[in-house]
Amino acid sequence: MSSTWNNLGLHLSIFGESHGNGIGVVLDGIPGGTPINLDELNHFMQRRAPGHSSTSTRRKESDQPEILSGVLQQDGTPFAVACGTPIAAVIRNTDTHSADYEQMSTLARPGHGDYTGHLRYHGCNDPRGGGHFSARLTAPLVFAGGICKQLLALKGIRIGAHVLQIGSIQDTFFDPHSIPEVLFDTIAGKAFPVIDNDAGKQMITAIEDARLDQNSLGGIVECAVTGMPAGVGDPIFGGIENVISSAIFGIPAVKGVSFGAGFDFAEMTGAQANDPFYMDGDEIKTSTNNAGGILGGITTGMPVLVKAAFKPTPSISRPQHTVDFKNRTDAILEIKGRHDPCVVPRAVPCVEAAVAVAMASFLIHN
Amino acid sequence: MSSTWNNLGLHLSIFGESHGNGIGVVLDGIPGGTPINLDELNHFMQRRAPGHSSTSTRRKESDQPEILSGVLQQDGTPFAVACGTPIAAVIRNTDTHSADYEQMSTLARPGHGDYTGHLRYHGCNDPRGGGHFSARLTAPLVFAGGICKQLLALKGIRIGAHVLQIGSIQDTFFDPHSIPEVLFDTIAGKAFPVIDNDAGKQMITAIEDARLDQNSLGGIVECAVTGMPAGVGDPIFGGIENVISSAIFGIPAVKGVSFGAGFDFAEMTGAQANDPFYMDGDEIKTSTNNAGGILGGITTGMPVLVKAAFKPTPSISRPQHTVDFKNRTDAILEIKGRHDPCVVPRAVPCVEAAVAVAMASFLIHN
Amino acid sequence: MSSTWNNLGLHLSIFGESHGNGIGVVLDGIPGGTPINLDELNHFMQRRAPGHSSTSTRRKESDQPEILSGVLQQDGTPFAVACGTPIAAVIRNTDTHSADYEQMSTLARPGHGDYTGHLRYHGCNDPRGGGHFSARLTAPLVFAGGICKQLLALKGIRIGAHVLQIGSIQDTFFDPHSIPEVLFDTIAGKAFPVIDNDAGKQMITAIEDARLDQNSLGGIVECAVTGMPAGVGDPIFGGIENVISSAIFGIPAVKGVSFGAGFDFAEMTGAQANDPFYMDGDEIKTSTNNAGGILGGITTGMPVLVKAAFKPTPSISRPQHTVDFKNRTDAILEIKGRHDPCVVPRAVPCVEAAVAVAMASFLIHN
Amino acid sequence: MSSTWNNLGLHLSIFGESHGNGIGVVLDGIPGGTPINLDELNHFMQRRAPGHSSTSTRRKESDQPEILSGVLQQDGTPFAVACGTPIAAVIRNTDTHSADYEQMSTLARPGHGDYTGHLRYHGCNDPRGGGHFSARLTAPLVFAGGICKQLLALKGIRIGAHVLQIGSIQDTFFDPHSIPEVLFDTIAGKAFPVIDNDAGKQMITAIEDARLDQNSLGGIVECAVTGMPAGVGDPIFGGIENVISSAIFGIPAVKGVSFGAGFDFAEMTGAQANDPFYMDGDEIKTSTNNAGGILGGITTGMPVLVKAAFKPTPSISRPQHTVDFKNRTDAILEIKGRHDPCVVPRAVPCVEAAVAVAMASFLIHN
Repeated sequence: MSSTWNNLGLHLSIFGESHGNGIGVVLDGIPGGTPINLDELNHFMQRRAPGHSSTSTRRKESDQPEILSGVLQQDGTPFAVACGTPIAAVIRNTDTHSADYEQMSTLARPGHGDYTGHLRYHGCNDPRGGGHFSARLTAPLVFAGGICKQLLALKGIRIGAHVLQIGSIQDTFFDPHSIPEVLFDTIAGKAFPVIDNDAGKQMITAIEDARLDQNSLGGIVECAVTGMPAGVGDPIFGGIENVISSAIFGIPAVKGVSFGAGFDFAEMTGAQANDPFYMDGDEIKTSTNNAGGILGGITTGMPVLVKAAFKPTPSISRPQHTVDFKNRTDAILEIKGRHDPCVVPRAVPCVEAAVAVAMASFLIHN
Repeated sequence: MSSTWNNLGLHLSIFGESHGNGIGVVLDGIPGGTPINLDELNHFMQRRAPGHSSTSTRRKESDQPEILSGVLQQDGTPFAVACGTPIAAVIRNTDTHSADYEQMSTLARPGHGDYTGHLRYHGCNDPRGGGHFSARLTAPLVFAGGICKQLLALKGIRIGAHVLQIGSIQDTFFDPHSIPEVLFDTIAGKAFPVIDNDAGKQMITAIEDARLDQNSLGGIVECAVTGMPAGVGDPIFGGIENVISSAIFGIPAVKGVSFGAGFDFAEMTGAQANDPFYMDGDEIKTSTNNAGGILGGITTGMPVLVKAAFKPTPSISRPQHTVDFKNRTDAILEIKGRHDPCVVPRAVPCVEAAVAVAMASFLIHN
Repeated sequence: MSSTWNNLGLHLSIFGESHGNGIGVVLDGIPGGTPINLDELNHFMQRRAPGHSSTSTRRKESDQPEILSGVLQQDGTPFAVACGTPIAAVIRNTDTHSADYEQMSTLARPGHGDYTGHLRYHGCNDPRGGGHFSARLTAPLVFAGGICKQLLALKGIRIGAHVLQIGSIQDTFFDPHSIPEVLFDTIAGKAFPVIDNDAGKQMITAIEDARLDQNSLGGIVECAVTGMPAGVGDPIFGGIENVISSAIFGIPAVKGVSFGAGFDFAEMTGAQANDPFYMDGDEIKTSTNNAGGILGGITTGMPVLVKAAFKPTPSISRPQHTVDFKNRTDAILEIKGRHDPCVVPRAVPCVEAAVAVAMASFLIHN
Repeated sequence: MSSTWNNLGLHLSIFGESHGNGIGVVLDGIPGGTPINLDELNHFMQRRAPGHSSTSTRRKESDQPEILSGVLQQDGTPFAVACGTPIAAVIRNTDTHSADYEQMSTLARPGHGDYTGHLRYHGCNDPRGGGHFSARLTAPLVFAGGICKQLLALKGIRIGAHVLQIGSIQDTFFDPHSIPEVLFDTIAGKAFPVIDNDAGKQMITAIEDARLDQNSLGGIVECAVTGMPAGVGDPIFGGIENVISSAIFGIPAVKGVSFGAGFDFAEMTGAQANDPFYMDGDEIKTSTNNAGGILGGITTGMPVLVKAAFKPTPSISRPQHTVDFKNRTDAILEIKGRHDPCVVPRAVPCVEAAVAVAMASFLIHN
């Protein structure tokens, strides 16, 4: 429902426009007593924040959330505790160049929500910087997801993601059978979040080439959840797949979500696709994990594996054909402003956040 | 939330087990006065019903719904009208061979929800025929979707799907720019729902080969919505993508959902991916439709294009490694019973139904 | 949302019309393994069923639910177990006299939903017997509530209600401090559910007098929940009061809901109204219970006390002024058919059911 | 669900603690283009704000909301327009005397949510000033309701309320048949919101007497909605009564909600209670309005009439028996701090706001 999301007892309400007073989130349902390490939360948010690498936009935002409610902090420390009541946070917009968008208020940027948003809101939405459709709105999602990640970590559940593919360059896949925690930490510590550094270097080069060519690139993020107990989820519409996808499609530019072998299942036979069960001591495991850790919408206890496909950044600076949707004429658009030539690296923590929110919703019993 | 689905004012609650007394649905929110042609509804349900072709299970079920409430029928005619109150329907299970499942009550069928369902429900779920996890539970979804399709057709909105891929054999894609209504009707009238009959014949052969080899095949269904007005949908979590995927992942065996170019966006540049707007008379269109008719979660007015990836039928008759999850020992399983060697052809109306329910939820104002 | 109700993980969807094929319910969220005694459930439903006493309608309905899904019964016994999947039940309409309603299809019965339903559903709702607005639709609610009552009883939580008032005759109040289980059983075993039999006799006489006078009576039901642990509920919109009232107002003819001292608070001072806390051994109790066991939307551990006000049965047989809402003329209506001269006695298990559903929703963690 | 509320497409999420950084709200679903007069909104909020009259707390708060998103204001004017995207606002807490609450962090204030909140949140909620349970949390509700009131006024729908009763002193009732707009304006303009100024004076005296006596008073607010079209609402759980009560019980201290004759129905007969329909020109009306403008959960077109019962302010300064819920001992509590001796006058705009949110949710079709 619009910019709110909920599943079972966990509720998320995201608000804000890119060039308005602020963006933020209300996260309702985090149990009272959940410890929150604010440094760790801030560190997670910085992985998404702009201006930190050559592949990102030059817009500078500290992305420092002010927590308005629901958290009690121990003075002078990064240690805080959730009250159990709704956690609200606001992030101020500071480095806004609204003038960049003036021309665009009448021209539809191809690949953007300008025209559709204009129709949906009867011409009253705030178009500056994409308004409510801006990828900047993922910052509050990452704030909420960061808290959920810490809550899950207390139960031994870890979530990590990496850039799996950009253009035709592919990173190493997660081992579907077993992923060590340290790998998630290693990736998160890298300036460019991949498993294979060589692949990462090629991706950086490809992104830089695209930028110089006034172009942009799409890609795929792979995300894994380890330590999930088996038996979590619901059938039919309440499955892990339904709930995760309902959250991930909340990230702008995502146009596909798959689990385990995903679209590769089309070319597999049942004998290849079925994951045989076996006893590993007293634990039940599967020797392969094409199902991505989910059967019947419910976790198997194997790593949950998700892929999200991102379209290339639609804001490219080369001239594009479009229309003036107010005057209803054809037009040529040259986009100014500062844009990521590829959103995928900064989308990695966003996907982790969306998956964290989804998984937490299943595990919270207030 | 479990086996219920809702978006805005439309609500769906699916119930039943494969070998229980009956399966069914409550569909709440269809406006009073919506005409329902029961013959057309029945015809749509027969496209999903088993036993009609060489590629489906030999289980015979008439799949005749009894409408319990919410619809007033003109005696002796197929013409009925929605009352506006909840529409409930039950479909009896008749041709059940529960004995086929006795061995399985202790052995986990690989690729099925037996083990995860056993955990989720503390060993109390009905395992016969997969119980609530059975693909048979798509029959009530198709009933609900059939009503939504008729409601949408009144507004000039048409929904159609076809088997896009099985194994390595691919059908022709829908023209992303424009799809004539008659094509949907033509496909729906075919025993094997494809655009290109030659591709269809190869698919049938491949499925029959798989069956003879005690194996099964996966595939992809492509679905299109035409006639959608531009400007429908919501941002962030309420987008067309979120809502459609939350419904489609309710179909068993779906492991991926994408829109427009979907996962192919990974290898595209912004210059390729962006759909240029142009004026077509007084209408705003895009010359390509990589976005699948959706920008910012909101319709552009171009055809909405969705793909759903299906894993191969997990029930194959060759011996498989598995575990006895009660005795916690390794085991070999030989599945008896009657199973589709490929669920994809019968999944075509299921995808249409899920998409119809999702789209109708945006357009209903009671 | 319409005829569906949900809170946290418990979901209820009620369907049916009074003179249609059947009425029923889907109850989604009852944990797998919950024992269900079908005799006890049936006994609870019979407390609501018509035709059992002089004060009720002469319509005869066995009100025997057919359970369609979600429950596995041990053959030949009343013992059953919830599967964890949605529980669906249908109750057939058998003793329908639709001819009684023919005149009324154009005349609005005062106090009924005929006219408002006609507008709401664009004239397409089923008006026979009140259609979906009939008090008969409480039968599925009682079915769902009966299961929730059994689930709560396993946790030591008991729910009971009685007729507190009819006309100016008042029954004894529940002791707000402590209510023995046996009292609930005693009341439930009476043909007329009151604490004080003398008050009951006077009520029966008053109802009979009203009937002979072609009139009807309203009243109040008081309901109590004992054994609720302290600390259950949510703040603001998720409080016990909000959730219970959202369910009780689902019973036709309810026009007021209050908790503890309710509307009597208006004439109290803080010193009178506040319930002093005290230690009873190691337990925290309050010496009075004006709050009705709820503070800040959350249980105190004292009995939860709810009152529901019912309007008199609107169907009375004396001539009434009304309008023909199709022809838009004034008219005189003489209602035929069989109606309770007072719905309050049969409403007692309905209120218990609504409260049971609400309380169960807070305590279920699947 | 917790501190969030939604019905159909309108969603409200309230956050904050009385002595935290701020309190606020996200209101999601207001259609793009809805005009908002910020002066009028501010004026409405001031009717609730503390410190304006002798009967209210001496806590001074400007209650000036900062709008963070979803609204575009014309510079230098009070005229603004809703963007259609979520409207978020924060109100800072400034005049906090947290020291007043230190003793109380271990002693349960009778009639307050201290003890129940402590249990519910595992001792981690913010107890200062009642935290999230503070009546101060009605300020964001009034902000949201103020916007909904303006939206409804555009459709000719007006909402007004007054203090109906305090102690044994009763104001004049609204005329259930017809209420002129000007009456709402007149009441809203009074320092003490009653119809009958003499009754108001007596109420003020009674409140002052209670204050001097270290005591407090309860009361009843009556609210009316005029101009509602007939035929709005839903049956069973989606009725106007269910939805309004789910919102009103979100106001702290409300312990009862009724519609029309409410609890007085208990002593009425059907012949008295039924509202006869008649033709008033081409309009269908009822000559009485005991039903409070609602039949079958759906509006009749007559004024909607709601009453809400408030308990006396639990914070009284005389010594009270209670427990230390940490040390689990009996104790005597003397409450310091600044409290309204009667919350009812300031609750009047809160009830209007809750009703406005509920009614708007039925009328918004985005």
